[in-house]
Parts: sequence; C-alpha cells; structure tokens
Amino acid sequence: MIQTQSPPDALQIANRSFRSRLMTGTGKYRSFEVMRAAVAASGSEIVTVAVRRVQEGVPGHGGLGQELNWQKLWMLPNTAGAKSAEEAVRYAHFGREMAKILGQEDNHWVKLEVIPETKYLLPDPLGTLQAAETLIKQGFTVLPYINADFHLARRLWEMGCATVMPLGSPIGSGQGLQNAAAIALIIAESPVPVVVDAGIRTPSEACRAMEMGAAALLINTAIAQAEEPIAMGRAMGLATEAGRLAHQAGAIPVKTYASASSPLTGLVGSAVGS
Amino acid sequence: MIQTQSPPDALQIANRSFRSRLMTGTGKYRSFEVMRAAVAASGSEIVTVAVRRVQEGVPGHGGLGQELNWQKLWMLPNTAGAKSAEEAVRYAHFGREMAKILGQEDNHWVKLEVIPETKYLLPDPLGTLQAAETLIKQGFTVLPYINADFHLARRLWEMGCATVMPLGSPIGSGQGLQNAAAIALIIAESPVPVVVDAGIRTPSEACRAMEMGAAALLINTAIAQAEEPIAMGRAMGLATEAGRLAHQAGAIPVKTYASASSPLTGLVGSAVGS
Amino acid sequence: MIQTQSPPDALQIANRSFRSRLMTGTGKYRSFEVMRAAVAASGSEIVTVAVRRVQEGVPGHGGLGQELNWQKLWMLPNTAGAKSAEEAVRYAHFGREMAKILGQEDNHWVKLEVIPETKYLLPDPLGTLQAAETLIKQGFTVLPYINADFHLARRLWEMGCATVMPLGSPIGSGQGLQNAAAIALIIAESPVPVVVDAGIRTPSEACRAMEMGAAALLINTAIAQAEEPIAMGRAMGLATEAGRLAHQAGAIPVKTYASASSPLTGLVGSAVGS
Amino acid sequence: MIQTQSPPDALQIANRSFRSRLMTGTGKYRSFEVMRAAVAASGSEIVTVAVRRVQEGVPGHGGLGQELNWQKLWMLPNTAGAKSAEEAVRYAHFGREMAKILGQEDNHWVKLEVIPETKYLLPDPLGTLQAAETLIKQGFTVLPYINADFHLARRLWEMGCATVMPLGSPIGSGQGLQNAAAIALIIAESPVPVVVDAGIRTPSEACRAMEMGAAALLINTAIAQAEEPIAMGRAMGLATEAGRLAHQAGAIPVKTYASASSPLTGLVGSAVGS
Repeated sequence: MIQTQSPPDALQIANRSFRSRLMTGTGKYRSFEVMRAAVAASGSEIVTVAVRRVQEGVPGHGGLGQELNWQKLWMLPNTAGAKSAEEAVRYAHFGREMAKILGQEDNHWVKLEVIPETKYLLPDPLGTLQAAETLIKQGFTVLPYINADFHLARRLWEMGCATVMPLGSPIGSGQGLQNAAAIALIIAESPVPVVVDAGIRTPSEACRAMEMGAAALLINTAIAQAEEPIAMGRAMGLATEAGRLAHQAGAIPVKTYASASSPLTGLVGSAVGS
Repeated sequence: MIQTQSPPDALQIANRSFRSRLMTGTGKYRSFEVMRAAVAASGSEIVTVAVRRVQEGVPGHGGLGQELNWQKLWMLPNTAGAKSAEEAVRYAHFGREMAKILGQEDNHWVKLEVIPETKYLLPDPLGTLQAAETLIKQGFTVLPYINADFHLARRLWEMGCATVMPLGSPIGSGQGLQNAAAIALIIAESPVPVVVDAGIRTPSEACRAMEMGAAALLINTAIAQAEEPIAMGRAMGLATEAGRLAHQAGAIPVKTYASASSPLTGLVGSAVGS
Repeated sequence: MIQTQSPPDALQIANRSFRSRLMTGTGKYRSFEVMRAAVAASGSEIVTVAVRRVQEGVPGHGGLGQELNWQKLWMLPNTAGAKSAEEAVRYAHFGREMAKILGQEDNHWVKLEVIPETKYLLPDPLGTLQAAETLIKQGFTVLPYINADFHLARRLWEMGCATVMPLGSPIGSGQGLQNAAAIALIIAESPVPVVVDAGIRTPSEACRAMEMGAAALLINTAIAQAEEPIAMGRAMGLATEAGRLAHQAGAIPVKTYASASSPLTGLVGSAVGS
Repeated sequence: MIQTQSPPDALQIANRSFRSRLMTGTGKYRSFEVMRAAVAASGSEIVTVAVRRVQEGVPGHGGLGQELNWQKLWMLPNTAGAKSAEEAVRYAHFGREMAKILGQEDNHWVKLEVIPETKYLLPDPLGTLQAAETLIKQGFTVLPYINADFHLARRLWEMGCATVMPLGSPIGSGQGLQNAAAIALIIAESPVPVVVDAGIRTPSEACRAMEMGAAALLINTAIAQAEEPIAMGRAMGLATEAGRLAHQAGAIPVKTYASASSPLTGLVGSAVGS
C-alpha cells in the first residue's frame, strides 16, 4: 500500500508522502493496457481520475477499478466537466464514493476543476474559490487547478487548500510553461506544495518546471497522446527527477562571457603533469 | 573495458558504441574525489581531458591516470589551449601519447578545439578546418568543436570527421541553447552524430538538446561548478536519457486551443461506469 | 480639446476616440519638465494620474494641474495605493473630483487598481471585481488592471467595463510580456479594447504587444526611468504605431526552410534584363 | 542625390552616410508599383538588387532602372545566386556595371552572398572569405552576408570589409533573431557597422535587433510578402527608428520584483496636493 513513512526528499501533501513527484492521468489513452504500462513506466504514485464519467454510467467494459492497482497508487479524483462550483462539489462527493468502493476509505482528496467553457478549458477563479471553501468545510483535501494568479493562489492556501495547481498553459495544448514567471512567484511565496498542471508537452519542460522549484507536476495528454506513451511516461518520470535534483544541486550562474573548462592553473594539468 | 558490442539504442561514434549519451569533462572540480563521483553519478562513459596541461608538466600530485578508471571510461583528449591549427595538431599527438600511457593503445580520438582568444572562447572555423584535415590524414578520429554553422559542419563531415560538436553558447557561459535553430538544421542533415557541446547550464536544457535530436551532449562546467556536482551529474545523466527517449517517443503537437483530458466519450467513463 | 470625431484607425474607448494607442503615466520622473517633454514626445493622448497623492495633500509645489495641458490630454485617474475594493472606490471619486477641477467635467474614467501588497504589486481579482461592480453602478467608465486571467476578464467585460488591462509582468519590473499567451487569448475573445499595462521595458516589447492585437498600451516606468526619458518616450510612440500597422498589414508566415528573396523567375531579373 | 554630409546620428558605411538605418530589397513584390511605394514608405535609402537577374537578360518589361529613382536611393548590388567565390566575384562586377549604367558611377558596393545550396540558403564561410579578399583587392566596398560566427566576422573586418551582415535566421524563413546571442557578441567587438540581414519577420524583431546595437537592418521578404507591403514597409521603418532611439536612450534594468509607478513620496502627490 502507499507508504505513509517519508522517503528521503518525499513529496508531502496533507498527511501523505510520495516518492515520485509526477502525477499522471487516465484519459486519452489508446487502451487500458497502454495506460497501465505508461503509468508504471512514469513511476507515478498519484493518478487522477475524472469521476463524472463514472457517475454518468457510460456503459462499458472493464472499469478503472480493475484496471489500476489501487493498492499501489493513490487516487486523485478530479471534477473535470464541472462548469460551476455546485457541480464541482457534487463531483467531489462522487469521487469520494468511488475511492471508497475501490478500497481507499480514507481518501478525501479532490483535484478541483471549475471550467465554464470548452474552448480554452480555463478555470474560473470565482467558482474555484467558492467550491474550495465548501469542500474544505466538508472535510475534503482540496487541490485546486488554477490560472497562475498570485492573489488567487494566496486566498486558496489561506483557506486551507493542500496544494495549488497553476497551469503552465491550457489543458492539452502542449504549449508548455507559458506562465513561468507567474508560477515562479507563486512558488516563492507558497506555504503549500505548488503542482504545475496542464500544458507540459516535453520532458525538458517538465524538467524546467521542477528546476524552478515546483513541488510536483501533473502530466496527462503529453504522455497519453505521445506516439509511444510508455517511453514518454518513462521520459517524463526521469525528467521530473532530474529537475528536482537540479533544483537542489544549485545550477551555475549565467555569464556574459565564456569561462574556460580547463584554466591554465587548473586541476587536470597539475594532476596529470606529474 | 568499454563495450564494443552495441547496446540497444547505443551511441555509435566511429567504430565504438556507448550506452550513455552524456560526455563529461575533468576541469573545474573542487577535488578529484568529487570529480570521480560526479562522473560516476552522470553515467558518462566518455570523459574529455585537456592534454596540454599534461604536456606542460605542471608540478603535481596525483595525476589523472590514477584518478579515473580508464578500464571503464573512454578518454577523449582535447586540444584546449590551442590558438592555431598547428598547436591543435601538436596537442592531439600529445593526447594520443597520453591515452597510450594510460592503457588505451587504440585510442586515436581527439576533440579538436582551435580557439584564438580567451574572452569568448569561440572556435575559429578556418583553423578548425585546417587542423581537421591534417589530423584525419594522420589517422585520428576527429570530433571538432564548432560554431553552429551549417556549411562548416558539412565540410567537416565530408572530410571524414567522426562527429560535429556545435556549441549551444560560449564555453562556461551557462547561456544554454542560444543556437538551437542552427543546431537543429545541422542535425537534420548530418550523416554523423551531432554532439552539443558547451553552454548547457541545466538538465532541462540538456533534455531539450536531446529532444531536438542531438546524438549526445558534452557537459563540464554545469556539473563541475554546481553547488553539488554529484547530484547535478546524476541530474544531467537522467535528463539526457529523458531527452533521448522523448525524441524517439514522438511528442504531441502544440495546439492553439485546449483539449480535454477526459472527453465525454472518453475511456475512463466507459470503463468505470459499468 | 480631445477630438470626439474618429480619426482613421482610432482607438475607441467608451464614447471617446484617440489617435495615439500609447497611454503614459506621470510617476517616477526626474522633473515635471522631463515628464512633459517625454509625454509630448510619445504622442500619448491619455495620461494616468495616481489620485491618492492629490487627496493626501502632500505639501508641494506646482501641482499637476499646471504641469500638463488638460486641454490636449485626457486624464485617466488611477486608484494606485488602494489595497481593497472600498479604498479603490473612494479613490475613484477623488479622481472624478480632480478631473472636474482641472477642467474635464465629463471625465468619469477610472483606471481601477486593487493591489493588496507592495512586493509584487499584483492586482487582487476579487477586490477588482467588487470595485468594478460598484463603480459601474455609480456611472464610472471603468478600465480595470488585471492579471491575464481569461474568466476574470470575461466577467469584467460582461459587467460593463470599458476595457480590460492585463499585465505583461509586474509593475515596474521591466520583465516584458511574460503573460503573452494568456493575453493573446483574452484579445481573441474580448469585445472591449484590451490594453496591455505594466511590465513593458523596451519598444520591441511594446511593438510585439501591438502586433498581437492589443488595442493600446500603458507604459510609465520604462519611459520615466530610462536614462533619456524623452528619447524613450518617442521610441515607445513609434514602436506602438509600428506594431499597430504590422497587426493590420499581415506578417509573413514562419517557414522551416529558407526562401530566396530573388527567385529565378523573379521580378528584378525580368525587369532589369531588358 | 544621396547626402554626403552626415545627418545627426547618421549611419556611416565606408565614406557614405545615411539617415535611414533600414535597407530594403526588390525581390518578391507583386508589382513594381507596390515595390516603389513600400520602399518609399519604409524610408529606406539603400536598396539591394540581385544583379544576376540583370545579366541573365530575362526577357521583360520595364527594368529596374526606370522603376526606382537612383537619384534618391543608393544601390546595393548583391550576388544572390552565386554558389562559389568565383561566381560571386563575377556577379559583383556585373553589379558595378549596372550601377554605372543607372547613374551611380562611383558605386563600387557589393553585398556579397556565397550560397552553395538552395534549401537553407546559408552562406558558405570559406567561399565568402575568398570572394571578399578578391573583391577588396579589386576596389570594391564589400558588405558580406554571413552566419553569426565571431571569428569569421573578425577575419572579414580585419580584411577590410565595410560591414558584416550576420543573419538572424535563414533568408525568407521569418524565424526572427535566432542567433541573437552570437550577433550581440559580434556587435560588442566589431569596428565596422553590423547589419542584421535575413530572418526578420515583424517590426518587433527589427526593433529588438536595433536595441541590441545593430547599426542597420536589411529586410526584404517580410515587407514584400506581407499582405499589405506598403503598411509593413512603414511599420519596419518606424520600428527601426524606435529601436535605434531606445538603444541610445538606455532602457531600465529588469527587476525580480515590482516597483510602484507612484511611490508614496512620489512626484505627483507632492505636486497636485498643494
């Protein structure tokens, strides 16, 4: 089952800790088999699920319950499809039910999305604030998906949200970190983990977000819709880890001029010359 | 000893193949101990050495011969410090001697640097062409360090160079991939491996260079001078691998608009709803 | 007095039209003389004034009333210093008074800024929404300063704001168009003029914002604090005009490959060869 | 005729000075009429012509001689189409003849292009060096088109070239200033005017190149192939001037944090409050 003891440099959200800092999704895959393999290759321990689909009872096969191993993965139900605060609150409750049915009785998490339109899929700040307030009162652990707006983020963490999840660029657009400066500023001030969610297209972008100090990433489309999702899942996992390491390892400063790798008085000469 | 059988997706240069696509250096480290650990953490199998230092007999301790395990690493002698084609050719010969002494009798490789000034440390195209021509005639395997100039690169590979090594930005500057467009164009046409050399500061930049299709990278300053070189070495190794995987895995296209991760008719709904 | 007839390609805000699409400010100048000259050199017709200063009755000299010619310039009172919706509403009323005293009896405009902190000077979305609602009811023409958040902008224009003024980057930071993608999306949908406000440092950034389709710009620090504010004022004016022209003139597409300026069957040959 | 007395902040190349810092071309226009009007709208005083076309005697109408007013414009014959140094030298002589015929007896200028392939249209550094050496000996004023390579540029100005003309990106590609860092470095060291040639697509890019300290620009495709070439010509002219002004006016530094336009102790307050 998911570890509750903290591994070294663990990602800590609410009262849980995770080894991997890459969250993944379950939408847009060619098949369950590919999804399972890509999630595994990514090393992801937190997987988000759009619970509205469940509730709508779309007739079907399989079911996610059997398809992913919830003994090993932590479910992050999301409110995708909610156009208003009310809908989002309702979907969050469905999510809690689903988690319970699938064996995660203590899972009260919800990735809160309030998205009034389908063209840009951008979150509504007011609706998100309202739904977050309600859900926190109802005992949920709320991870809100937001535009990279500092004061909106501040209100949400002051309210008790477990993370803030600013977008790099619109969902599925693959436009990368268009809001990097605004995200950096949220990272600089946030007392809760900042998870960059949406827009990442390549491992280099994932890596850069982590270098900037993001606590974690959520990546779905870029893995699921890659030509080879399993290889891309693994690439994203490695890049997330590389970016985290680099954030801690302290990169060199940028210089205007060049600087010789092997200066006259350098190490190699003195060493090898003997 | 270095593998001569090709591992899967091996980097092939001249008649050798390597598992790792990250080349590292030996300059600018705090100590030999840190250097050894950082090189090991990076997974690098090709390590470049500035042979002029050796020849100059700078009085000293240790010596690189004892400090790195040349049974496991392949030495890439470089001509750093050469201001002209003549000097570069001379240093290349020193390098061959050094490799022989250190147990690599069949190592005729040289990373060719012809750099007339010390402010920008930029390579001279004419001197590089001349030295490459001479060295190839003398049986060297030549890996020239160049500005990202398509026709210069073309002349070098037509002449028989084993790779071309365009710079991302000036040595040690940490300015990243300033020449990305020019490098991309060389990658698109080159029949030999393109190794991005110099300028990379962060793993995200390393990753991006590999995503663009670089065959390999050479990174020294960004590892050696990081606050924690060992962690940064590991980060660069992971990022190089992530970028290579992503190059092969086929990233999603960039879209103007958003695209829902969990469309109405999507997979999750049909599955879980049952 | 300010023209009420529309010049060609006029900027139309509420019931007024302007020839220039560059708004300027009055803060941070070395002297009134330089301010007057820089504003004149920029060609700006709309000048914003921080009215709180007036109300605070800071003892002093001159007074803006005598310093700028309000027969030729349109005053845009702003609520700088307001930390809440209430303060902003109060300052807006001061602004209306000030405009009246200075001879613009029909000026009910207000640049609405609700900024709760002084480190980043970022606008608060909730406070801005509340103040805008109140001020519109009270007959003001409201131009709100906002983070580049699509749904926030949408709510403001649906509410009746005369423009939306998304920031390029924080006030006075000179970081340029960090939010370009989010601004582009607001421009694509907005029924009211989109004025890019804050962050612009150079004429090339001003020009780019206009090329993207911004209706106008507001630039203060980059002019007032330049080494030579008058020359920079003129540069910003020219760049704003250049960007507007280019937006209408339809730039060429970006191509992967080159394209000869003088193809074999081209114009010059056929013409000159005769 | 072209002014020989220096206007204020004139562009000085060889022994001539010019008011405008924007050079334009004559290829790719819809018609002579549009070309004439776009060149005029741009304010350009130096216009380049591909002389090979002339020599090839492509049957035709008009002829450039009647189409542009060489009493007012200075002709810059170029060697477009030359694949080798020899061809370039030959075309340069044709150019000199053409200039003479069209009334510019003292015009020995040549924009030197040696471009061996048609896919990328990138200049060959070796061929360019050879042709420049020959042409300088033959009394030409040589303006070589080059990749942004510092040592190549240095060799050319040491040889006596009147300018160096590094490319922003491949001809006609509209990719903008892809080589900005390399160009900046050439500008920092060059004793002759640096003219950015090729790749510019938008006025904001033109403006940025001038802000960086380019002495002048050459823009053809971006004007000729714009939807409205005349308006784009004017936009490019304004942007060039704006960028030049800004280069001299000293832009504000970039700051990490915000900086209030109207600080508490600021100018406006003390003034108006009286």
